[in-house]
Amino acid sequence: MVMDIEAFRKAGYQAIDRICDYYYSLEQKPVASQVHPGYLRELLPAAAPEEGEDFQAIADDYQKLIVPGLTHWQHPNFYAYFPTACTFEGMLGDLYATSATNPGFNWACSPACTELEAVVMDWAAQLFGLAGHFLNSSEIGGGVIQTTASDSALVAIVAARARYTAAHPDVRLEDLVIYTTTQTHSLGVKAALVLGLACRALEVSADDRFALRGAALRAALDADKARGKHPFVLVGTVGTTSSGAVDRLDEIGEVLKEHPDVWLHVDAAWAGVTLACPEYRAPAQLASINAHADSFCTNFHKWGLVNFDASTLWVRNRRHLTDALDVTPEFLRTKQGDAGTVIDYRNWHLSLGRRFRSLKVWFVLRSYGAAGFREHIRKGIALNAHFAALVRAAPPFALVTEPSFALSVFRLAPPLPGVADGEREAALDALNRAYYARLAARPDVLLTQTVLNGTFCIRFAVGAARTTQDHVERAWGAIQEEARAALAEWEAARADGA
Amino acid sequence: MVMDIEAFRKAGYQAIDRICDYYYSLEQKPVASQVHPGYLRELLPAAAPEEGEDFQAIADDYQKLIVPGLTHWQHPNFYAYFPTACTFEGMLGDLYATSATNPGFNWACSPACTELEAVVMDWAAQLFGLAGHFLNSSEIGGGVIQTTASDSALVAIVAARARYTAAHPDVRLEDLVIYTTTQTHSLGVKAALVLGLACRALEVSADDRFALRGAALRAALDADKARGKHPFVLVGTVGTTSSGAVDRLDEIGEVLKEHPDVWLHVDAAWAGVTLACPEYRAPAQLASINAHADSFCTNFHKWGLVNFDASTLWVRNRRHLTDALDVTPEFLRTKQGDAGTVIDYRNWHLSLGRRFRSLKVWFVLRSYGAAGFREHIRKGIALNAHFAALVRAAPPFALVTEPSFALSVFRLAPPLPGVADGEREAALDALNRAYYARLAARPDVLLTQTVLNGTFCIRFAVGAARTTQDHVERAWGAIQEEARAALAEWEAARADGA
Repeated sequence: MVMDIEAFRKAGYQAIDRICDYYYSLEQKPVASQVHPGYLRELLPAAAPEEGEDFQAIADDYQKLIVPGLTHWQHPNFYAYFPTACTFEGMLGDLYATSATNPGFNWACSPACTELEAVVMDWAAQLFGLAGHFLNSSEIGGGVIQTTASDSALVAIVAARARYTAAHPDVRLEDLVIYTTTQTHSLGVKAALVLGLACRALEVSADDRFALRGAALRAALDADKARGKHPFVLVGTVGTTSSGAVDRLDEIGEVLKEHPDVWLHVDAAWAGVTLACPEYRAPAQLASINAHADSFCTNFHKWGLVNFDASTLWVRNRRHLTDALDVTPEFLRTKQGDAGTVIDYRNWHLSLGRRFRSLKVWFVLRSYGAAGFREHIRKGIALNAHFAALVRAAPPFALVTEPSFALSVFRLAPPLPGVADGEREAALDALNRAYYARLAARPDVLLTQTVLNGTFCIRFAVGAARTTQDHVERAWGAIQEEARAALAEWEAARADGA
Repeated sequence: MVMDIEAFRKAGYQAIDRICDYYYSLEQKPVASQVHPGYLRELLPAAAPEEGEDFQAIADDYQKLIVPGLTHWQHPNFYAYFPTACTFEGMLGDLYATSATNPGFNWACSPACTELEAVVMDWAAQLFGLAGHFLNSSEIGGGVIQTTASDSALVAIVAARARYTAAHPDVRLEDLVIYTTTQTHSLGVKAALVLGLACRALEVSADDRFALRGAALRAALDADKARGKHPFVLVGTVGTTSSGAVDRLDEIGEVLKEHPDVWLHVDAAWAGVTLACPEYRAPAQLASINAHADSFCTNFHKWGLVNFDASTLWVRNRRHLTDALDVTPEFLRTKQGDAGTVIDYRNWHLSLGRRFRSLKVWFVLRSYGAAGFREHIRKGIALNAHFAALVRAAPPFALVTEPSFALSVFRLAPPLPGVADGEREAALDALNRAYYARLAARPDVLLTQTVLNGTFCIRFAVGAARTTQDHVERAWGAIQEEARAALAEWEAARADGA
């Protein structure tokens, strides 16, 4: 039953048609999949078939068995986590890339893959206003596409550790410390687990809008160094997951001038794409990124219109990557690599093989153009501003912190008559958890929760390409409806003396 | 210029048609790209366009600028490195997966992604004859799809380190040692670089066909432990890159019974897929894998018909992964995850987000069936046997070691009259390097080189889906032609007294 070229043409046309149908019908689907755990194992045989099956049966099973098990991240009423990009241009990039698959580990594997990546990373660097030293054309720093921000951070931390231990060969690995904040994405803790190193999450405050300040960093560095510890990398964030907080990279950069062997990795996985718009370069701290960051990461595959995965990482000095990661056995040697005239991207990341990810970035940047890319970012921010205004105008809704770019974090904060002051926060927490459970059960909208310094709250993250103001207003309707129900339930329970 | 649904239909049909054209014309193309370093930067603008471009121009540029920069790993005369799989079923899997992209980090992201992966990993485990404890349905061990074998090995080594340091909390990281052999793929050294740990490459001999034996392992363990070192993981290989060597896992397993806290990771990235055929289960050491391996990896994306990337990793005990890698902040908590009723694959690998890779594995296993999969593997081995027979029958060609599965390693070994015995190997090395340089310059065939215990040699790796006996014979013609030329050149140089 193996597919030949003409059978592929037929199945390929059908796939394209069915993807079109998917997008025409997307808005009618529940946002989150409604299946129960284990649903698919019940429907599939226990083992692969002995004889090959007709592809039409397989394609039909995709529609029948898989699509109902998908949560639709491209649904216009998806406001959970952060968006995951999915554009038609991105799909076509993935399709062309897979059609002539190669493992891409050196230039010779397929020169176009290395070369296009080097060029589009320079395009992206300029789109975001990154300084010249981050460009591949500088031949000093450079950019590389990783799978995810976790991967980018891990690579940066490995390079930071190699740089630090080369300068301090007598330091024990046990004494190295990775700095994050309590608001840093789990990628910080994960990197520490992977590397077997200590991690210290610096405290931040609601008064500082959950941003790391220079003074807190200085105090931590001084205290840790005094007790013989060696902080060697700080993961700063532009746009944290819980609240969109932006660490004060200006202050951090000043402090790190006193500690030049501490590497500054800036994780802007979500919000980094706002740098495409001149008006967001100050709030997203571009000047400090350019002045102070050893490495900078943003994910095109979140808000940046390129299909997952496409995490872009730039470094100030590419030698820090290759010094840490270069492995070139005989079977990987090439004339061009030996001559040093080409980038061998395998030495810029963890794996050996790599997909041709730059193709989809190229397709998207050309089809949208810089202007279209900025328009998409501005639309998300405007929709979020609209949502935040609705929240502000409608007590007992309350923003827990200031909206950040395209993210608002809110909760219900009614007066709760009869609840003692000392019990108010616990009662609000219980109310909001019950409220969120109601909201999460709805098929027509999807939001996710978080906890900010102990306060349970709900995140509203805009950015799916198809979301309009009308969708935001319908989502707001659902949010209000469940709030009324949750408040009524709470009051009824209270009347019952519960 | 942003693409709408109908524009996507048009561009999608065209992409399908052009992929068909690519495969119809594949054999007429040079195997390796003929471009020069820097070719693409010269052809592209220095920055992204300000305004979006028409997609037709972009699609045409893919044909005009990118395709000439591709090395065609699916060309039937590609015998370099190891094959990289690319089937129409795999492409369609990638296309459907990217069409509803989601980051897949927990069950709720899209239940179908987690559930299909759990099921197809059990299908694959059974296809390969893996023991029940490796199946997800065992709820003890289980399988997960990683990006590459480097990634799989790194995950296994992290789990091994976590298990070891939990049992030996006083051991310094500086005293841990990763064991590989001199023939282990660079993934061993790379993992050591990433983790900042020592790595010891155990010597193997040509007499043992480059396989690690139990006695050598025991001697190394005893010596290292005596000097206070802590070997905690051994990367054993079934099918090394240079020569297809298979470590003696039976002997290794017996030795490791005396060292039960040393983790055995079996890297069968290339040759593991032969386990689908009952007749290769003994040479590929299935019984010992089942008896002794803590983790086992093979790549469907090499010889296994699934488009890159799809590296399958099984572990004997899933808790060793989650104990090492579990990170669950509030914003990643789910009802199902908290209840423990579902797998959250993010805790089984390094990154957070992950692609829907199981879809293409499912498509391939169903379309080929187990029988079709085995037929593909057997065809590659038969073609290699044919090639090896041609080499054996044609001195001065010589096999450097026994052929392994679908890989032969050979060189020219003519008598070299007038060359002293002590200089013979150096002269052969020079001759074969010159010979390989000629071969590598040919557009109609692609092979790569390696060095085996100091001997420069040439690898012939079969496995591209479209290779037939006729292709192998034409490649053999090219190989003979360049050999005659290289030998004539060598003799002429000698006559000149060079």
